[in-house]
Amino acid sequence: MSKKITARSEDYSTWYNDIIQNADLAENSGVRGCMVIKPYGYAIWEKMQAELDKKFKQTGHVNAYFPLFIPKSYFSKEASHVDGFAKECAVVTHYRLKNAEDGSGIIVDEDAKLEEELIVRPTSETIIWDTYRKWIQSYRDLPLLINQWANVVRWEMRTRLFLRTAEFLWQEGHTAHATKDEALEETEKIINLYSNFAEDFMAMPVIIGAKSENERFAGALETYTIEALMQDGKALQAGTSHFLGQNFAKAFDVKFATKQGTQEYVWATSWGVSTRLMGALVMTHSDDKGLVLPPKLAPFQVVIVPIYKGEEQLERITQSVISIKEALESKGISVKFDNRDTHKPGWKFAEYELKGVPIRLAIGMRDLDNGTIEIARRDTLEKETFPIANVEDKVDSLLTEIQKNLFNRAVDFRKANTHIANSYEEFKTLINKGGFVYAHWDGTSKTEDTIKKDTKATIRCIPRDTKNTEGNCVYSGDKSERMVLFAKAY
Amino acid sequence: MSKKITARSEDYSTWYNDIIQNADLAENSGVRGCMVIKPYGYAIWEKMQAELDKKFKQTGHVNAYFPLFIPKSYFSKEASHVDGFAKECAVVTHYRLKNAEDGSGIIVDEDAKLEEELIVRPTSETIIWDTYRKWIQSYRDLPLLINQWANVVRWEMRTRLFLRTAEFLWQEGHTAHATKDEALEETEKIINLYSNFAEDFMAMPVIIGAKSENERFAGALETYTIEALMQDGKALQAGTSHFLGQNFAKAFDVKFATKQGTQEYVWATSWGVSTRLMGALVMTHSDDKGLVLPPKLAPFQVVIVPIYKGEEQLERITQSVISIKEALESKGISVKFDNRDTHKPGWKFAEYELKGVPIRLAIGMRDLDNGTIEIARRDTLEKETFPIANVEDKVDSLLTEIQKNLFNRAVDFRKANTHIANSYEEFKTLINKGGFVYAHWDGTSKTEDTIKKDTKATIRCIPRDTKNTEGNCVYSGDKSERMVLFAKAY
Repeated sequence: MSKKITARSEDYSTWYNDIIQNADLAENSGVRGCMVIKPYGYAIWEKMQAELDKKFKQTGHVNAYFPLFIPKSYFSKEASHVDGFAKECAVVTHYRLKNAEDGSGIIVDEDAKLEEELIVRPTSETIIWDTYRKWIQSYRDLPLLINQWANVVRWEMRTRLFLRTAEFLWQEGHTAHATKDEALEETEKIINLYSNFAEDFMAMPVIIGAKSENERFAGALETYTIEALMQDGKALQAGTSHFLGQNFAKAFDVKFATKQGTQEYVWATSWGVSTRLMGALVMTHSDDKGLVLPPKLAPFQVVIVPIYKGEEQLERITQSVISIKEALESKGISVKFDNRDTHKPGWKFAEYELKGVPIRLAIGMRDLDNGTIEIARRDTLEKETFPIANVEDKVDSLLTEIQKNLFNRAVDFRKANTHIANSYEEFKTLINKGGFVYAHWDGTSKTEDTIKKDTKATIRCIPRDTKNTEGNCVYSGDKSERMVLFAKAY
Repeated sequence: MSKKITARSEDYSTWYNDIIQNADLAENSGVRGCMVIKPYGYAIWEKMQAELDKKFKQTGHVNAYFPLFIPKSYFSKEASHVDGFAKECAVVTHYRLKNAEDGSGIIVDEDAKLEEELIVRPTSETIIWDTYRKWIQSYRDLPLLINQWANVVRWEMRTRLFLRTAEFLWQEGHTAHATKDEALEETEKIINLYSNFAEDFMAMPVIIGAKSENERFAGALETYTIEALMQDGKALQAGTSHFLGQNFAKAFDVKFATKQGTQEYVWATSWGVSTRLMGALVMTHSDDKGLVLPPKLAPFQVVIVPIYKGEEQLERITQSVISIKEALESKGISVKFDNRDTHKPGWKFAEYELKGVPIRLAIGMRDLDNGTIEIARRDTLEKETFPIANVEDKVDSLLTEIQKNLFNRAVDFRKANTHIANSYEEFKTLINKGGFVYAHWDGTSKTEDTIKKDTKATIRCIPRDTKNTEGNCVYSGDKSERMVLFAKAY
């Protein structure tokens, strides 16, 4: 049962897999590219879902559910969308299996071939806008603010748990508006919502910005993104919000009668975050000892481990633990009391360290006599002996502190790994070192492509908060209106 | 905007579709057999999910997520399962599309053919037990109590919204146990949980029982079911819980080391309820005026409609409504204040009647002067004028009463439509009339099949609560140990 985590410095990629595996977050399944999300990992995803869902509803959105399958022809309707999405995807061609006549097993029934192939949704714009045509007639039907929690499939050739899997879970918002301004406002509202979620809930600092044309969503006029910096110096796109203009309304003929009685095409947005956030979470906070969880995302925030010999000692300790547990729970803190006799305290300590439980309380006979308890925090690995009385207040404030500390630590890391490049030589050196690199860019796709080919770095975004200071493109020397954010990325 | 509901007496099936459509619950999509669950319908499903999820967690279950796709060969591993499930299902054969060379659109890329076809899960026993093999080594790993919320696909030829759709949403529990008794206990615990949920939450009375061998889940040694009676006299299977014995453990080689050190196969259960419950809900309570919702399932339990002319009146009424709304919400009651100026009060009354909102409050200028408010309940359609002061207490107790009344009404309906058949002639007459029919059965599949062919009635279950009173089979005259429950069914 000795679970071993490879050090980040030794092999970052193996470290990542070791964490996912040993903290029981997920594993590969028997189906290529598809993962199994294990209960502990899923419990974290449920916390993310609950918080996002609350935020969506508070901002007036409702949930609905649209079909898993999309007829092939739907993809052809929006010209730029087809190139972006209708390529690497799972295609359903038949609807029946049968027993082979030679008894060799079950085979596809060739008589049950679909007239038109169905695509397992890689994203749902097409099927949803095909539906919106029926739902939207008048300005009274707008805005339509709908979100869907669903699984989607993109046939990725090289997959990594959470970061890039053939099937993944996500939410996709699809909204319809009467005016361009309203749709743009929605696009921005959501990217702000994502940013707040990432920073306040996941303790993961992000940069908000717009994507360059190259990196936009297929069919979007504008894509906003939140970009986080991982511990290996690579960027991770953590969520996107798209202003789709009237592209999908035109492709699916969705018009509405205005108050004035004219007919106009509807304005659209779409936006999503996925189980990819689980990968981002791991790579933002975890260390060489295992997963580190911000308290707001921990399936249980506190674990209590009894140190005892024999039934009688356990009973005495349990009595004390029960009232501690109740006191903590009355403050809304989630607690697990691990009184299993199948594992030793040392094993349990290692296990919960691996699983990133924010606070561990340990209590033995000597503690009981002294009225004390040992408090260990996962983020700093510090331990402290503390009076049992009022331990709930101590734990409560410690949880707040851990949440804050993780965020600050990640901000510090990002600061230390963000640089400005003033020449292309400097740019290449900095990109090679890893981290975020701000640099002037002439605004052309040609330059962007060349830089990508040269250095593997992409423009992560045109940051919203960067001042419009003119300069010269780090590559071409041409005029540039502002710096943009480059990095190698997941 | 005149939405018309066909009367049940006129055409029950059209009545059902009218309710689904006009109450905005769901609609057919552009994909054959796949439905779109609209926001109002989805909000009801979310209420069901939340309550069930809470109950599962309270009984020690955790959620996880397994792949959407199952390799074809997995189905062949459990002999009886293959016949039951690996037939009418969606088969993925390719993983890429491409642009046709002649520019005619996108086509399937024949170079991207999968070596082994993937089946879109119709149920997940096989992929889950393939995973459990890795998770279960020792008695310490048991019991494993896992639930999954997911979409599944069964290629039904004749589909009906919610009742039978190609894709549907459900939860599927899959548990693993060290002993047969423990697995049997779990199977029963869950069917009781489902029964409580149906009766207490959905206000839908159900009969608990075991399925006959013919009607069991493919691969199960015992299937427990809850059976509800719809208003057209047909039965609806509302949830099932299966004792799978060691079948799947043997098929997927899942053994564990006992405390004594021997190797044994694991015992299994699986259980599920689906969006079919939405159909059951509609057909249990609704009437010719529209949907009727039990308060515990209503997306909003109270709607407040202002009766006014002009801005000034609306403002005065709104002031009063705000405090009423707050008073109701402080009691945990969900309230919608419909102050839209785009629709008249009469239209709103009809709309919320259609949508089954349990209580409607209406308030106009005269009410304001008299300190009164009109309260209308959806179940009985009764109206009453009531003092505004303490309206929250009145509404609170009324919601409890409505919940209870709907349950009692359904129980009364079931009583009036449940009969005992003492001869086959009587049996046929009763079955033709519709409703539940109790009759003695000789226990053979042959008799069961003949009765089904003759009358279209099936054995819904061998009810748990029927006394073991011996008698003679209503068909064959052979000895029978107890009466079983027959009905035509959805």
